[in-house]
Amino acid sequence: MSRFFSEKFSSLVPYTPGEQPKDMQYVKLNTNESPFPPSPGVKAAVEEQCGKLQLYSDPECTQLREKLAQVYGVSPNQVVVTNGSDEVLNFAFMAFADEQRPLAFADITYGFYPVFAEINRIPYEVIPLKEDFTMNPADYIGINKTIVIANPNAPTGLAMSLSDIERIVQSNPDNVVIVDEAYVDFGGESAVTLVDKYDNLLVTQTFSKSRSMAGARLGFGIGNEKLIADLNTIRYSTNPYNVNRMTEAAGVAALEENGYYMANCRTIMENRAWTIRELEKRGFSVLPSLTNFVFAKSNAIGGGRLYQELKKRGILVRHFGKERIKEYNRITIGTLEQMGALMAAIDRILEEGNL
Amino acid sequence: MSRFFSEKFSSLVPYTPGEQPKDMQYVKLNTNESPFPPSPGVKAAVEEQCGKLQLYSDPECTQLREKLAQVYGVSPNQVVVTNGSDEVLNFAFMAFADEQRPLAFADITYGFYPVFAEINRIPYEVIPLKEDFTMNPADYIGINKTIVIANPNAPTGLAMSLSDIERIVQSNPDNVVIVDEAYVDFGGESAVTLVDKYDNLLVTQTFSKSRSMAGARLGFGIGNEKLIADLNTIRYSTNPYNVNRMTEAAGVAALEENGYYMANCRTIMENRAWTIRELEKRGFSVLPSLTNFVFAKSNAIGGGRLYQELKKRGILVRHFGKERIKEYNRITIGTLEQMGALMAAIDRILEEGNL
Repeated sequence: MSRFFSEKFSSLVPYTPGEQPKDMQYVKLNTNESPFPPSPGVKAAVEEQCGKLQLYSDPECTQLREKLAQVYGVSPNQVVVTNGSDEVLNFAFMAFADEQRPLAFADITYGFYPVFAEINRIPYEVIPLKEDFTMNPADYIGINKTIVIANPNAPTGLAMSLSDIERIVQSNPDNVVIVDEAYVDFGGESAVTLVDKYDNLLVTQTFSKSRSMAGARLGFGIGNEKLIADLNTIRYSTNPYNVNRMTEAAGVAALEENGYYMANCRTIMENRAWTIRELEKRGFSVLPSLTNFVFAKSNAIGGGRLYQELKKRGILVRHFGKERIKEYNRITIGTLEQMGALMAAIDRILEEGNL
Repeated sequence: MSRFFSEKFSSLVPYTPGEQPKDMQYVKLNTNESPFPPSPGVKAAVEEQCGKLQLYSDPECTQLREKLAQVYGVSPNQVVVTNGSDEVLNFAFMAFADEQRPLAFADITYGFYPVFAEINRIPYEVIPLKEDFTMNPADYIGINKTIVIANPNAPTGLAMSLSDIERIVQSNPDNVVIVDEAYVDFGGESAVTLVDKYDNLLVTQTFSKSRSMAGARLGFGIGNEKLIADLNTIRYSTNPYNVNRMTEAAGVAALEENGYYMANCRTIMENRAWTIRELEKRGFSVLPSLTNFVFAKSNAIGGGRLYQELKKRGILVRHFGKERIKEYNRITIGTLEQMGALMAAIDRILEEGNL
């Protein structure tokens, strides 16, 4: 830390992204990326932009917002687009939470929520998940806080029903409820259908998982027009050109080929079912997942040890050192070939013993 | 504004980007874009990334930082890369200014500075430029504030000498001095040469102007390693994947073909000299510019009126309504063909009279 760093950030602990070791070629099952490349139209759309990069992007992202509005059945003024969904989450925390409206979120959820809260100096309440890692909707009813719920949740993969989400939104009419649906396309129920009914509901999604664009950085928020206008006030006060030309064009093209991505999601869901069965055969407990990852613990080897042993064998999964979940690993669902390689590695580790 | 918007932002006035009207094809001289497309290697580099967009970008941007370090003669740990230079400026304001270390900047300068200050709730002092729109270095000597200087300045185009910058940096050893060099490649003297000498100097630059990449969003900061580490603390607490795969690759490729861009800058400087001569022939006063734009006022027609008349004729320039500069327009230097079109339009406007 330099001697110039503002005191207010002196105890800030930044988010730790999933590791990207460069020492060898890994089977990468640690950051919930899609194993499928973007659709052909994305490449063509990006190439077209390459000759125009000298021109600023459209700060209103009109084309992309119109396309998203069409796909999600809302109006373009109900959509904001951002540099990954991390950005819309940060903007939403800034806009809708403060000393007067503290935040509430689960103890086991996306690790960036407490970081966004800290950097924006927003007080927050951490609400523990139940013993079985499900959320108890009753914990969020009428609590008069700005609530953020990852649904389905990460790293557990567990989803809350839409009716429970609706009860929470309805019972906190004076606070925004942010539903972070980064993983919704793998079997979850989206709350986008409720945005016209509740002016305090903001839904965020991303192109990083289901639409194979983690490396293009594209997220979005859908909600009441006034909420979106507030998010734009923040956006135009920090980074109006947050989505670059190539990413905007890629996003439009991906939505035009949406069927390709939704078919990929079905493949991932099939591979997930296969993976769960195979892990259970090997003595793992696996939480029922509606995401592109599973959260699993072995009855024979500790979570940290399994992570290490897999890494040695060229397979990356994500392990969190946190108390309640340290026996688990979060394993991204890739192709059947990748999942087969994982099972083979697990078999070797279990056979070798010394666990 | 929604009823949920945090009170602390209720009076926030966002930045206004240059207009991008879609009603007709304009000669666009209003946002200081380059008239030249990116170099061929940029397209090839971006295309290569299109097949890998499903993978997250490298949050450390190692390749790009190494390339920048090589071009600018510093170490990679002295470089941070961001989503446009707006982002590094915002991060620097957050990191190095607060109630205890208020900001200071000129009255006539980049319009985003007061917005970044407001959104981060940092007090700031506005220091008027001299009558002739130059900065008085004495106004910044030993003032014990976090200082931001656009050098060359916008929208005036005027530059401060490197020795004056050094005196300011030296005389404020307990505050960071941010030198925003968005336009330095058009004839200015960069302060990057001083970063090893002063631990309180941060230089920011952008690929938007001299490197034809406004639409790709790429900025960077160079300074002492500790300053850069602090900026990374902020970056990892808001948006660790701020630079996407395509933009990173485009940046590396552009630096490998740096000669192309530097030759374009020389062309712009020649076109600037031509433009100044032609404007002066037509009765304009033009400030001596070291940027890719000129700031000019006519002796025959008001600034706002000229802007309107040019727009009607398909030529966009940028007019600021602000008191001291409302008789001026900021005119981007494009190709000679574009500048010729501007002169022809001015001739028609002046001939028609009724001014």
